Amino acid sequence: MVFYLIGLGLGDVEDITVKGLNIVKNCARVHLEAYTSILCYGLDKTNLEKFYGREVIEADRTIVEQESDAILKGADEEDVALLVVGDPFGATTHADLVLRAKQQNIPIRIIHNASIMNAVGCCGLQLYNFGETVSIVMWTDEWQPESYYDKIALNRQRGMHTLCLLDIKTKEQTVENMMRGRKIFEPARYQKCSEAASQLLTICERRKAKGEECAYDENTMVVGLARVGWDNQKIVYCSLKEMSEMEMGEPLHSLIIPGETHPLEVDMLETFRASS
Amino acid sequence: MVFYLIGLGLGDVEDITVKGLNIVKNCARVHLEAYTSILCYGLDKTNLEKFYGREVIEADRTIVEQESDAILKGADEEDVALLVVGDPFGATTHADLVLRAKQQNIPIRIIHNASIMNAVGCCGLQLYNFGETVSIVMWTDEWQPESYYDKIALNRQRGMHTLCLLDIKTKEQTVENMMRGRKIFEPARYQKCSEAASQLLTICERRKAKGEECAYDENTMVVGLARVGWDNQKIVYCSLKEMSEMEMGEPLHSLIIPGETHPLEVDMLETFRASS
Repeated sequence: MVFYLIGLGLGDVEDITVKGLNIVKNCARVHLEAYTSILCYGLDKTNLEKFYGREVIEADRTIVEQESDAILKGADEEDVALLVVGDPFGATTHADLVLRAKQQNIPIRIIHNASIMNAVGCCGLQLYNFGETVSIVMWTDEWQPESYYDKIALNRQRGMHTLCLLDIKTKEQTVENMMRGRKIFEPARYQKCSEAASQLLTICERRKAKGEECAYDENTMVVGLARVGWDNQKIVYCSLKEMSEMEMGEPLHSLIIPGETHPLEVDMLETFRASS
Repeated sequence: MVFYLIGLGLGDVEDITVKGLNIVKNCARVHLEAYTSILCYGLDKTNLEKFYGREVIEADRTIVEQESDAILKGADEEDVALLVVGDPFGATTHADLVLRAKQQNIPIRIIHNASIMNAVGCCGLQLYNFGETVSIVMWTDEWQPESYYDKIALNRQRGMHTLCLLDIKTKEQTVENMMRGRKIFEPARYQKCSEAASQLLTICERRKAKGEECAYDENTMVVGLARVGWDNQKIVYCSLKEMSEMEMGEPLHSLIIPGETHPLEVDMLETFRASS
C-alpha cells in the first residue's frame, strides 16, 4: 500500500489533478494539512469533503511535524493520503514525513502540483532568472530583522530576480490567553505587499542614514502578486514607493524585486502597470 | 470569451487539473503545443483526444511562436485553449502569445500546474536554496560551449543549488535532407544525466589543465532525476564521476549540483544513494 503526498495547487478545490482526485476517492484515509491557512478561503475541510464525496481529517502543522506516525499509521496495509496546499515540496518541505515513511518501508508517491514557487512566472519574469527565494518577516515594535536584505542585494548584484514570500501568522495567542493556558487563537494574519514594501523602504532609509548603499530605492520597480491562480488574481507592477501604498486585496500576497530584465520580460511587466 | 493557457503537468494525461479538464471539455477549440517532445511518451494527441473525448489540434513550437494569430483566432468570440506540458510559465515562457492576446483585448486565463522548476523539490533539496537555473547544451565535435559553467560556479560560491535542464533536440534534419529541402526530421534526442555529467567533468579537466580552479570535481555529489512525477521516476544521488556512467533510463533527465546542504536535505538525499 502507498502513502500519497498530494499537492492541491493554488487554492481552489478544482486545482487538484485528475490523478490526485482519483487517489483521494480510493484511499482508506485522507488527511489535510491545515497549516497554510489560505485554507479558510475555499479549501476548507467542508468544501473539500463535499467536492471529494468523502471524509477528510484535518491535521495542523504540529501534528504533521510531531505526530507523523499518526498520519502514516496503517499506510503499510492500506492507501493513505496527505493533502497539501501547493506542491508537497514547494515552500514548505515535507522531508520529515517522507523520511519517516521510508524508515518504515512504506512506499511513497508524490502527486505534484503548481505552487507559488513556479506560478509566479505568470507575471512575465522568467523562472530561470530567479535567485534565492526570501521570506519576509512581519515586524513588531521590538523585533525588526533585516536578514533577508542581504539575499535580495546579492540577487540584484547578479541581476537575478528575488521572490519574496510574505509572512503568515497563524495560531497566535494573546499574552493573557497564553498565561491562562487557554487554547484560544487570534485570527490568522497575512502580510500584505504594502507592508512588505514599507519594511523594505525602512531598511533602505536606515542604510542610507548610516551612509551605506542600498540595493534598491523607492523608485525601484517591483511586482506585487495577490491570489495567484485565483479568479480574482491581481498583479501590479509599480515602484516600491507606490507598492507601499497599494491595496492588493485579500491574501495571499507575494512580492518580486526584479533584477536585470530582458525586453520581453519588460513588455509583460508593463501590462501590469498600476494606472496612476 | 477567454483564451486559456493550460498546464498539463509532468507527463501523464491524468496530470491535468480538474479545472483544466473541465475547460478543455467546453472550449470551442483546443490546441496542443507539441514542442517539448515528452509528448511522444504518453501525452500525444491520440491519448489526449481519447482522455478528453474531443479533438485536439497539434501545434508545433514554430506555429505557437510565429503563427500565434492562428491560435488566438476567434478567441474573442468563443473559448479557445492552448495545452502546454508542465506549467505555461515554466521552463518555456509563453509571454509572446500572452502579449498578442492582450493587444487584441482577448481575456486570458492561466491554469497552472507542476513543472520541473518546482517538482525537483522531490529530491529533498529546498526550492528556496536554488540559484539561477542553467541549460546544458549538447556538445558536438565542433561546438562545445561552457557558458553554463560560470552560473554553476556562482551558485556554488553562494552555497546555492543549481538545477541543470538538459538539452532536447527536436526537428533536426540531416544535411542531405536539408539541402534537398525534404521536411524529414531525425528522431528527437534527449541529453542524459550521464552525458551532462561527462561534459561537466571535461570542463573541469580543461580548467585544471590551464591551472584554473574548478567549482566542483569528480567527487562532487550530484543528483540525477529522470521522469520526475512519473510512475517510473528515478532519482540518484552520487558523485559526478559516478553520474557520468549512470544509466537513468528514458527521458527526460535533469541534473542538480547542490550547493551547501542542510542536515535534513542530506538525510533525504542519502535515501537516493546509488548502491555501488
